[in-house]
Amino acid sequence: MLEETARRRGFFWPSFEIYGGASGFIDFGPVGAALKRKIEEKWRDFFVRKQHLTEIVTPIVMPGKVFEASGHVAHFKDPMVECTKCKRRYRADHLLREFVPVETESLTLDELEHKIRENTVRCPECGGELSRPEYFQTMFATTIGPYSEAVGYCRPEAAQGMFINFKRLSEIAREKLPLGVAQIGKALRNEISPRQGPIRLREFTIMEFEFFFDPEKKSCDQLENVANERIRIVPVELRLRGLEEPLDLTVADSLRKGYILNEWMAYFMALSKRFVTELGIPLDNQRFHEKLPKEKAHYSAQTYDHEVFLERWGWTELAGHAYRTDYDLLMHSKHSGVDIRVFEKHKEPVRKNLRVLRPVASTVRRTFKQRTHEVLELIRKADLNEVEKGFSEKGYYQFEDLRILPEHVEIKLEEEVETGRRFIPHVVEPSFGAERLVYATLEYAYSKIKDRTVLRIPRDLAPIQAVVLPLVSRDGLPELAGRIYDNLTAEHFDIEYDEAGSIGRRYARADEVGVPLAVTVDYRTKDDETVTLRDRDSWRQVRVKINDLSDVIKRYLSSNVSLEAIETSLTS
Amino acid sequence: MLEETARRRGFFWPSFEIYGGASGFIDFGPVGAALKRKIEEKWRDFFVRKQHLTEIVTPIVMPGKVFEASGHVAHFKDPMVECTKCKRRYRADHLLREFVPVETESLTLDELEHKIRENTVRCPECGGELSRPEYFQTMFATTIGPYSEAVGYCRPEAAQGMFINFKRLSEIAREKLPLGVAQIGKALRNEISPRQGPIRLREFTIMEFEFFFDPEKKSCDQLENVANERIRIVPVELRLRGLEEPLDLTVADSLRKGYILNEWMAYFMALSKRFVTELGIPLDNQRFHEKLPKEKAHYSAQTYDHEVFLERWGWTELAGHAYRTDYDLLMHSKHSGVDIRVFEKHKEPVRKNLRVLRPVASTVRRTFKQRTHEVLELIRKADLNEVEKGFSEKGYYQFEDLRILPEHVEIKLEEEVETGRRFIPHVVEPSFGAERLVYATLEYAYSKIKDRTVLRIPRDLAPIQAVVLPLVSRDGLPELAGRIYDNLTAEHFDIEYDEAGSIGRRYARADEVGVPLAVTVDYRTKDDETVTLRDRDSWRQVRVKINDLSDVIKRYLSSNVSLEAIETSLTS
Repeated sequence: MLEETARRRGFFWPSFEIYGGASGFIDFGPVGAALKRKIEEKWRDFFVRKQHLTEIVTPIVMPGKVFEASGHVAHFKDPMVECTKCKRRYRADHLLREFVPVETESLTLDELEHKIRENTVRCPECGGELSRPEYFQTMFATTIGPYSEAVGYCRPEAAQGMFINFKRLSEIAREKLPLGVAQIGKALRNEISPRQGPIRLREFTIMEFEFFFDPEKKSCDQLENVANERIRIVPVELRLRGLEEPLDLTVADSLRKGYILNEWMAYFMALSKRFVTELGIPLDNQRFHEKLPKEKAHYSAQTYDHEVFLERWGWTELAGHAYRTDYDLLMHSKHSGVDIRVFEKHKEPVRKNLRVLRPVASTVRRTFKQRTHEVLELIRKADLNEVEKGFSEKGYYQFEDLRILPEHVEIKLEEEVETGRRFIPHVVEPSFGAERLVYATLEYAYSKIKDRTVLRIPRDLAPIQAVVLPLVSRDGLPELAGRIYDNLTAEHFDIEYDEAGSIGRRYARADEVGVPLAVTVDYRTKDDETVTLRDRDSWRQVRVKINDLSDVIKRYLSSNVSLEAIETSLTS
Repeated sequence: MLEETARRRGFFWPSFEIYGGASGFIDFGPVGAALKRKIEEKWRDFFVRKQHLTEIVTPIVMPGKVFEASGHVAHFKDPMVECTKCKRRYRADHLLREFVPVETESLTLDELEHKIRENTVRCPECGGELSRPEYFQTMFATTIGPYSEAVGYCRPEAAQGMFINFKRLSEIAREKLPLGVAQIGKALRNEISPRQGPIRLREFTIMEFEFFFDPEKKSCDQLENVANERIRIVPVELRLRGLEEPLDLTVADSLRKGYILNEWMAYFMALSKRFVTELGIPLDNQRFHEKLPKEKAHYSAQTYDHEVFLERWGWTELAGHAYRTDYDLLMHSKHSGVDIRVFEKHKEPVRKNLRVLRPVASTVRRTFKQRTHEVLELIRKADLNEVEKGFSEKGYYQFEDLRILPEHVEIKLEEEVETGRRFIPHVVEPSFGAERLVYATLEYAYSKIKDRTVLRIPRDLAPIQAVVLPLVSRDGLPELAGRIYDNLTAEHFDIEYDEAGSIGRRYARADEVGVPLAVTVDYRTKDDETVTLRDRDSWRQVRVKINDLSDVIKRYLSSNVSLEAIETSLTS
């Protein structure tokens, strides 16, 4: 129903229709693209501007080594089976679950195969026998430039572009922490057989940020602003006991009970709830669902999915909140050989007494003769702990063919001045899918009044903010309406003009794409320079002067006040 | 110089730095991403909103058949040579041009090889001999889903997403023409060896629209708005005579002289000039450069590149204006088998007398006996013109073993009622590269005042609109400044806060990233609730009440009026 309206009225539809389609891709039409853009803009205002994040843009196609370092090449894969008869391919775990109600998240390939054989799962299309499951890499692979060995992948998340740039971004921010880095852009995942329309897409728009903080100063200075906010939460602790009913807790309590590991994560979960609520989704249809260890991504110490209930798809993830710790920065540090630690200067330099190993030249020379130089070097570079361990366990320290005895070394105390500390920040990551937000917004906006579809899209997100309608197509009314249309367009409103069909039919058409206001130009307009303003949700009308129109529309769109109240405040 | 500032201050830098980079990719840092977004937003306002285009979003990865139909699989390729010794690969025509000043655009592979041998061009890295040139497909290839035969490509332009959706979009627009469809998004081209930093990218952001119109009604109803606008134009007619100096002509004259084939194309070229001028690029550094037949893309009947002069790269294309005719829609119609013609209803049904061929049953039966039925069918389906041609040339019409004589047929006049016409629209396409617009804007904004870098980015595009500075970091000034910062942030301004270093140093830092206004909070602020506003370009300062701040900033950013003038208008 929603999807039928979405397609017909130009919100979204499956891509490549004239070529028979390709699952996992959708197109956004005129109003859909506008709604998507406004949701992205709202997210940017809500998170990037108000939380003082920094936003960057990095490429979609990235060299293979980035994803080798990040662990995606090793972990980002799904089990696949092929029908030995018709050669169709399926996601093994999903197929198994369609046949038997079994938990498949943590099964190995062998276990999957065993369960498939045990339950005589066969090809759903032709009944053929299935192959042994194999892993399928779910990143889109390509080559960068003319060398076939230069493997590249389309990013499955925007995060890695933030991690590999962390060093430079931290320098630009003069190494201040916390530092939040955001990105909005396309991400791609080469699903084996996506079957959930606009929900599981191969290409989608991710809006995510990496919030870097000092693991030794992890308290969130904004927490008081959300501490008493209630969230509906299903922690792993409950899920492991088979309980999926959410607890209704304050953010402070969720932290106190240890359900959320990290204050910053709790803070952003609270903001996430506020954001999704502003899309028109009631709190009762939201929950935060903690992932079990086997369900989590490889980089995450804790993950909460922010889910909403959708009629057709059930509980559906709109956002993920992951505590990625220092995993990614550490991995890129190792793989690139670049030191990406942050330096924090001590207020006062710290003086430390360090125990250091020094050779005793006389005894070394006596024992090692012409190899003296080599041994002196060895001792200077040796690890004090290793040497002491050797002495205490065996009475000597062996390095290749050289045996060092306690008489060859002395341990001294030396003073060192430490001006600061170097460390790898930790990170929490809130990550939203724009297409799912669009879908959920539309589902909750979709309503019927007397058999007519009315899309109650929140006013500030409406793709078309107002439509200008001449009552009839003659007697100068279209010209008058055209001028109003041009003026409102010049003032940056998103305005449409419609003169086709009866006025009732045009109202209905506007309601169906969620236009909050209709401006009707009638015969009276010619006399007294007023127009009728009609609102989508109440169908009530007020009379407004053309000169006040822009002001009234602006106030209506940026508030929840009724049209009558705005009109009254104007005339009084 | 520009690129050094760009990197250090966070505009842009080469991607994947910590992994040694990959040419053809750049990252946009905090201020660069904001500038890019504002240029995109300005483009959207300028073209999409004001020209009433419709904007859509379609996927980056598309099935191979789309690009087989569009001709990209056949035409989108570059000649490549490999060094037989070190195995490095080069773009053959570019390499040849580095060695000999020769025109390479239209050379075949054989001709290229001949010229390479003739001029003993060798590997620039190791001096090795070069292989025979071969074509390299410059789209990024991948596979969609788990079947290796399901080839997909990253789109090299956004246009195809508009063409394959034309039918649905036209239905949504109730088949009204003209219809402009826009898209802003990533496009990818797998260049063999991109060496021009931010100018020739493998991944870039395209902003383009397809403007569909009826080829029988091709006059532009907006032309009068630009007819007298002057443009600098280098038509092919001149170039073929070796003249590259632009003519300075009005749009009307360019059309009259036949330099521009199409009114809509001329109209959008004029808007293109206005748009680029608003980025701060003087008219004298712009030109429209027509492509020679061998330089044009395969789909284009006429192409003008809108070029600007860049210090490092010379004349550089910022936008392309192509007259794509009905090429793409026709190709997709053929390849998909879907009728994507537009139907235009006649005001009155048109009655036409048609000459039709009918069999004369009696003579047919006499001649063909038991094959009568077959021959009657044949005559009903035969093409009248073919049959008449046979009669006049040979006295009969032969079909396989059947010989039809004039006595077997009669030609009748029948009336047919035509309610409308079906046709494939023509299209002009203005297409802009966002990264190049960012680069050009920065180059023309870059200036030096007394050895200091000042980025004179147009006010409405400034990534950071104002910075709030407490004069000193004590005596309550930071708290006061912090409140001003929070208030301006809440009002959706893009605001920064800076308290590190001397005030002069902070002004310099702001000038270097192009912040138009600095708000300084000093001791007087505590007494009289005023702050100092300093403007980037004149370095002049005015005193403004905190209560007026938001209004002054808004007026300053949306105009070209001086700060003093705004301040005077406030106090008077």
